[in-house]
Amino acid sequence: MLSYLDMTPNQLIEEKNKVSAEYKRYVDMNLKLDISRGKPGAEQIKLSSQILDVLSSKEIYEYTNAEQIMNYGIVDGLPEVKKLFADMLGVDSDEIFVGGNASLSLMYDMIARAMQFGFADSKRAWGKEETIKWLCPAPGYDRHFAISELFGMQMINIPMLPTGPDMDMVEKLVAEDDTIKGIWCVPVYSNPQGITYSDETVKRFANLKPKAPDFKIFWDNAYCIHHLTDTPKTPLNLMSECKKAGTEDMAFMFASTSKISIAGSGIAAFAASKKNMDFLLKQISVQTIGYDKINQLRHIKYFGDINGVNAHMQKHKEILKPKFEKVLGILDKRLKPLNIASFNSPEGGYFISLDTLEGCAKRTVELCKGAGVNFTPAGATYPYGKDPYDKNIRIAPTMPTIDELETAIELMCVCVKLASLEKLTA
Amino acid sequence: MLSYLDMTPNQLIEEKNKVSAEYKRYVDMNLKLDISRGKPGAEQIKLSSQILDVLSSKEIYEYTNAEQIMNYGIVDGLPEVKKLFADMLGVDSDEIFVGGNASLSLMYDMIARAMQFGFADSKRAWGKEETIKWLCPAPGYDRHFAISELFGMQMINIPMLPTGPDMDMVEKLVAEDDTIKGIWCVPVYSNPQGITYSDETVKRFANLKPKAPDFKIFWDNAYCIHHLTDTPKTPLNLMSECKKAGTEDMAFMFASTSKISIAGSGIAAFAASKKNMDFLLKQISVQTIGYDKINQLRHIKYFGDINGVNAHMQKHKEILKPKFEKVLGILDKRLKPLNIASFNSPEGGYFISLDTLEGCAKRTVELCKGAGVNFTPAGATYPYGKDPYDKNIRIAPTMPTIDELETAIELMCVCVKLASLEKLTA
Repeated sequence: MLSYLDMTPNQLIEEKNKVSAEYKRYVDMNLKLDISRGKPGAEQIKLSSQILDVLSSKEIYEYTNAEQIMNYGIVDGLPEVKKLFADMLGVDSDEIFVGGNASLSLMYDMIARAMQFGFADSKRAWGKEETIKWLCPAPGYDRHFAISELFGMQMINIPMLPTGPDMDMVEKLVAEDDTIKGIWCVPVYSNPQGITYSDETVKRFANLKPKAPDFKIFWDNAYCIHHLTDTPKTPLNLMSECKKAGTEDMAFMFASTSKISIAGSGIAAFAASKKNMDFLLKQISVQTIGYDKINQLRHIKYFGDINGVNAHMQKHKEILKPKFEKVLGILDKRLKPLNIASFNSPEGGYFISLDTLEGCAKRTVELCKGAGVNFTPAGATYPYGKDPYDKNIRIAPTMPTIDELETAIELMCVCVKLASLEKLTA
Repeated sequence: MLSYLDMTPNQLIEEKNKVSAEYKRYVDMNLKLDISRGKPGAEQIKLSSQILDVLSSKEIYEYTNAEQIMNYGIVDGLPEVKKLFADMLGVDSDEIFVGGNASLSLMYDMIARAMQFGFADSKRAWGKEETIKWLCPAPGYDRHFAISELFGMQMINIPMLPTGPDMDMVEKLVAEDDTIKGIWCVPVYSNPQGITYSDETVKRFANLKPKAPDFKIFWDNAYCIHHLTDTPKTPLNLMSECKKAGTEDMAFMFASTSKISIAGSGIAAFAASKKNMDFLLKQISVQTIGYDKINQLRHIKYFGDINGVNAHMQKHKEILKPKFEKVLGILDKRLKPLNIASFNSPEGGYFISLDTLEGCAKRTVELCKGAGVNFTPAGATYPYGKDPYDKNIRIAPTMPTIDELETAIELMCVCVKLASLEKLTA
């Protein structure tokens, strides 16, 4: 195959006619597929559906503290569950708070409380400041950016490098601007690029010298055990590095079982330093009488401990690996030789990130939609939904079946080609 | 028995010596009882423990939409569950939002969002106002007041009458002060007095003419079906009355199954007008990807519908009625003839409210604690924990066994007597 970049104008026009006809055939198929969200597939959810069977009314009363578990209270979560998340995040149990079914809500709440009350090290509530700025490594997770946008933060794009966020830029910005209060991070298998932060990046995070006394790193470890290979990356632990540097009050870590057990009915947790935890528990004790401890116990009964969870993740890997391979195989075959797209080959996580030629992402997604296949809107991976180069597309291979994926990605390749040809012949 | 108020000084001193000796006998018993919180008792929780058995991994897949239920999404709750709460609160299903396991969190969130964003009818976010004032019918629920206090609201005490809050005062205050943004209400079997608002009170609420355009009634219907008699009160419905008056944007209603199914693992909901719901859903969709729908479905599978719930509440009544009768019997026998305390005889809800002589509540609770029995701290039923008369004590009869209750209330009567005698002989 000839690279599009090497084609003559006539060759490009000829190719465009060919690809247009190909696209039309897809339109005529009346497809209806949605691969827009990073939801687990049905097969994955089925993996842990027996979690619904492990805690009967008979079995719960085998616990001596059954009545405590079933009644109100224990606001920070059951000790066994705190231990599970402590092991998952590499912190101590007393640094863990266990919440409801969504770590996203824990992040939202953390920001909402900061806006209202500030943190222990804040001069005042963030909402009382003229301006709150937030660093957003991009491409990144659209729901993170949506929280920042809702709270009226000024989001600053930070380029992603193969080692994680551009730390030169992060260090410089936080050192000189005390209105910068935090940063979103997905340190392991980042959303959408699948980048795992290097040890040096983690160290540089732990050793940041922010001008704001209450600068916070939101370390969303959503994919910390969501490996696609047998040789998983084990990056340095942020909290440990922060403790060495005496900066542990800067770090909040988040995790959940949403992509481990049943997606909508998992449990979530955050980790925080003792000082932060003491400060937060006073507010959280007003906010709730405690989260659902029976669902917490259900997870312990089903998984046992972190080893049980890790063993279970192997089963997810077996389901997900062929899906990722399917997508990458098609992209390799259809797009690589044409020099019109680049994409990563992730070792874990939930996404494949594809970069088209500049200015072609929106048009590609629009063309896909025109043929009945929904992708994540182009731009969604950037703050305010604005990709400055209009080139990034997030592919979420987990939810569709392999057959659906094959159709969707084959179509997508046609659309990338067509959008590229439109640009090159314009 | 001679009323303390009719005793001569010498009789009082003699009685005090007698009661002191009685108190000492209790201290020597080394009791350790906690009747401070309105938690359901073990027997009540056991009533619905089989809710854990109704939704096995096999059974969930009998639902055609099982995968949707198990995955992320459906932020406002399953339709069947919305219908259940709609029937419970007397509103339409599309006026219902179903949350997690605690209505308290839904109320906290509602205030938190108002502080940050305001409501559709707000001029600006409440947090941008100099002052936010809040009406607090008192005695009332300490956790309501704790939310207002945390958010820095100025709380205004509203006296409770047998018909509900003093509506003359409520009407006057809201009409003249636009910094008054809302009111806490427990309209049925109020906490702690067990007062059910009269129809006239409900109508007057619906017809309030607040100066603040975004004044909100927080209608915490925590005990709407928690009857202790066979002839339950059925007060007018606030939302219906508001619709008649065109004021439905003023009303938020809250309920949960916390005191119906398993206390710590129930489901909660709020009701709001269409305008409010549309406004709120935009924010809530950033806050969460949806609450635990499996636990929602579990409730539907166990209870069926509102009729199933009402039938189940009969069983709670059978457990609770003897407890309330035990407390009231002791109070009647020990305190009534002495003219040193008054108390209500509730027809539902979770509490008995006892008024000592002025200035004796704190001392009574302190004496109880000295003998190993914890009551709700005196003052807790008032904003800022400050009972202006130091006379109200909240008795929570639900959690202890009948035997524990008997001991605790007998002791309490001794303590009320002793505190009264200390006052009368001072």
